[in-house]
Amino acid sequence: MRKADLPKPCRAFGLHVSRLRAVKREDKDEPRSGRGPAGRAAARSTAALMVLFTLGPALPRQEKGPDGYRMVTERVRQAGLESEGAYEFLRRITEIGPRLTGSSGAAAAVELTRRMMTDLGLSNVHLEAVVVGRWERGAEERASVAAAGAAGPVSLSVCALGGSVRTPPSGLTAPVIEVESFAKLARLGPAARGKIVFFNRPMDRRMTDPFAAYGAAADQRVLGAVEAARAGAVAALVRSLTFRVDKHPHTGLMTYAPDVPKIPAAAVATADADLLSALLETGGPVVVRLEMSCGTFGTATSANVVGEITGAERPGEIVLVGGHLDSWDLGTGAHDDGAGCAATLEALRLIKGLGLKPRRTIRAVMFMDEEFGGTGGRFYAEDERRRGERHIVAMESDRGGFLPVGIAAGGADAGALRKIRAWQGLLEPLGISWIGPGGGGVDVGPLIQRGTVPVSVIPNAQTYFDVHHSGLDVLSAVNPRELEFQAVILAALAYVLAQEGV
Amino acid sequence: MRKADLPKPCRAFGLHVSRLRAVKREDKDEPRSGRGPAGRAAARSTAALMVLFTLGPALPRQEKGPDGYRMVTERVRQAGLESEGAYEFLRRITEIGPRLTGSSGAAAAVELTRRMMTDLGLSNVHLEAVVVGRWERGAEERASVAAAGAAGPVSLSVCALGGSVRTPPSGLTAPVIEVESFAKLARLGPAARGKIVFFNRPMDRRMTDPFAAYGAAADQRVLGAVEAARAGAVAALVRSLTFRVDKHPHTGLMTYAPDVPKIPAAAVATADADLLSALLETGGPVVVRLEMSCGTFGTATSANVVGEITGAERPGEIVLVGGHLDSWDLGTGAHDDGAGCAATLEALRLIKGLGLKPRRTIRAVMFMDEEFGGTGGRFYAEDERRRGERHIVAMESDRGGFLPVGIAAGGADAGALRKIRAWQGLLEPLGISWIGPGGGGVDVGPLIQRGTVPVSVIPNAQTYFDVHHSGLDVLSAVNPRELEFQAVILAALAYVLAQEGV
Repeated sequence: MRKADLPKPCRAFGLHVSRLRAVKREDKDEPRSGRGPAGRAAARSTAALMVLFTLGPALPRQEKGPDGYRMVTERVRQAGLESEGAYEFLRRITEIGPRLTGSSGAAAAVELTRRMMTDLGLSNVHLEAVVVGRWERGAEERASVAAAGAAGPVSLSVCALGGSVRTPPSGLTAPVIEVESFAKLARLGPAARGKIVFFNRPMDRRMTDPFAAYGAAADQRVLGAVEAARAGAVAALVRSLTFRVDKHPHTGLMTYAPDVPKIPAAAVATADADLLSALLETGGPVVVRLEMSCGTFGTATSANVVGEITGAERPGEIVLVGGHLDSWDLGTGAHDDGAGCAATLEALRLIKGLGLKPRRTIRAVMFMDEEFGGTGGRFYAEDERRRGERHIVAMESDRGGFLPVGIAAGGADAGALRKIRAWQGLLEPLGISWIGPGGGGVDVGPLIQRGTVPVSVIPNAQTYFDVHHSGLDVLSAVNPRELEFQAVILAALAYVLAQEGV
Repeated sequence: MRKADLPKPCRAFGLHVSRLRAVKREDKDEPRSGRGPAGRAAARSTAALMVLFTLGPALPRQEKGPDGYRMVTERVRQAGLESEGAYEFLRRITEIGPRLTGSSGAAAAVELTRRMMTDLGLSNVHLEAVVVGRWERGAEERASVAAAGAAGPVSLSVCALGGSVRTPPSGLTAPVIEVESFAKLARLGPAARGKIVFFNRPMDRRMTDPFAAYGAAADQRVLGAVEAARAGAVAALVRSLTFRVDKHPHTGLMTYAPDVPKIPAAAVATADADLLSALLETGGPVVVRLEMSCGTFGTATSANVVGEITGAERPGEIVLVGGHLDSWDLGTGAHDDGAGCAATLEALRLIKGLGLKPRRTIRAVMFMDEEFGGTGGRFYAEDERRRGERHIVAMESDRGGFLPVGIAAGGADAGALRKIRAWQGLLEPLGISWIGPGGGGVDVGPLIQRGTVPVSVIPNAQTYFDVHHSGLDVLSAVNPRELEFQAVILAALAYVLAQEGV
């Protein structure tokens, strides 16, 4: 039971519910009925979650082959779904607040997850240093559009894009010109000079896959400032990358190029993007004032956090499970990617709690600095500790904490996909109805380039971009049961992979 | 753009965004780029949604066979996902408020959806009378537990179960006794006499399928009052059927038996069920006072709402698509089952808007009184209008407005399932990764008994019972895009079924 859910009447009775629960459980003579799993889950305190525990009697040595693992995957499912363990990890991670690369929040998350790994009884828990940039949003961040009539300026919901330079302290005021593509911008010729270029091509709602729609629109955010500056513009304003029409701006990485001036770049909420566009349709000039005090302030030393269940037979062969610890600074990075970190920690908790002894090493890695380009992933792959290690599989979870619906696996390796597909019968009772080609992740990209096989649990991400990189990405946007399914599937699959290889 | 999302600055500029949008769209020379689908969807007003429209040029006559339909299903997907049409229907349905069987809200929903069908240009729009019971919650509904110490009574979050008799006007006060099963209650013997029997067996979280967990716990709610009265109890209190631990009670149907006294029955929120249970563990008697003024007040004449796209070649062969219009009275029945009604209406809007002319009839039915046992479904199946009609397929949507992940089809008819499975390639681009045996629904049960083939779009229902039958089941709990996927898949599948039969 989370603190916020504790019924107030408990205080009236002077009762401490968790204590009573503990007593009650000992008294029960019918462990499968009675208070049941919901109550037991509710009763489990944070401290109890962190301590090494046993979820049941030790399992007999498993047979090889898919059917031999059914008892394991069933036990993982029951132990996982009975709890809200992943959500409890996520609650503690998001309690830190935003975890922007190089910030004190990111440092606190490194320390917290290192401690969580130690408390789980993982082996070889350590930090691996990563040198990251330190971009900060700053105190000032606003935009307004001058009204044509007597009314004063009307504010727009904007946020600086990650990596942007600031405006002059007094702000920057210029007419806006709207384009939908770099090609259209190029055709404008000198018309963009001295203007704020407003990139307003929405994510294509008609696509089934939201990541495809995101990918097809993200060029505006990542490269908009470069292309606008090339055309002589003074700033770039980019429509937020979401299917929703609302007042929440969505940030994200942008980049500069060495040969063009660095101009400020901001995202504008979709509702205000529509407003701007409507104003431009009336024909007259639309003048926007933009004020941002963001900037990059040197570098900081941060870390990837690493811990493992060392393989009993082949400790140097590694199944990596992970997520990234850094987040954007507008919400608390609950889906992106607190969820991936929490599901990873819970997966290892379940494997350890069931007393499973994997043949190969199952390693959890909380990567640092995915959002600014995957620095942690590069440091990890290149660290001298990797010598003598062979990463056979990399499972990064970074698509939101929603219900898993499939597995993408194998990358370019059709043989690996075939092998994993043979285990579909094990995963169907956990809700996985397809296993297809693919897999990967920014942080494990460098490993995959070196031959590691990617395997990704694919959640239903239809609502991911509603919250992604915005102030809406907070704990309450994550459902505990759906997140737990991720952990259960990660645990089941990581264990089978550690036994069978790929 | 929904009204609530209209940016306030529009008013400052004296602009009406929808009007501007209309102008802008006419001006566009690049219809696929520019403002794009998000803007177009936002611009579509309620009125426009209701009017028969054309989503594009008429389709050429389709070839037979799965591949021939790919162009159709792609057009349905694009037209659907570009809009939030299903959500707009749902918004208007839930704006009525609760639609409890026999209530003025239910009557308003009948009239609204009849008008919606007429505005969509459906054929043969009519009402079919259904005589329903009229149960009302009444003004009083509370419970409290007497505190042992000096503190006053502590209130419990409860709600009457549907069909329950009231307590005496002065309330009912009795000690509580907790059981987890009817078997345990029977073993208690005379200990339950004069007590309030508290059924506290939770939904089993360890099950992958939430409907299975619900089904395994619902006996307490449906039959608890009968079994408690048989044991001499004065009332039944039932743990709410949800995986969550919170303060929201969840109502639902309960029944009485002719040979036992009718005693009041209420659901208690899970957090308060845990509190009661903890108090009982301390050993002393726990006395609860229950006061409810609910009751059944005769019958009312209500209606199923029917409209169709009449088949061009075999009008008497019918593919039925539907949901139920009545809801519980605590929320506004957004997921249960406003979503099913809205997705049905949107499916017919898409089929008509694309100019598709099905060979067989595609009929929308908004059933009345599912929640009190499926009266509308029985009336529909038995109505004399059914003479000369042959219902080949019944597609009822009543599992929440979440993202579809599969299709359950065929019931006992393996041949029908085989045929539908052959179309999997058509449905995969819409996100459907499995087609398995099953299908059905309370309202179409009587048709299925007469040989109609059930086909059900199965959404991800992991969070359905979080809101089901509670005050949390409101419009904001539904995601517009996920609901639209239901409509798209219903439309695609209903059309192919109407062409190909089963």
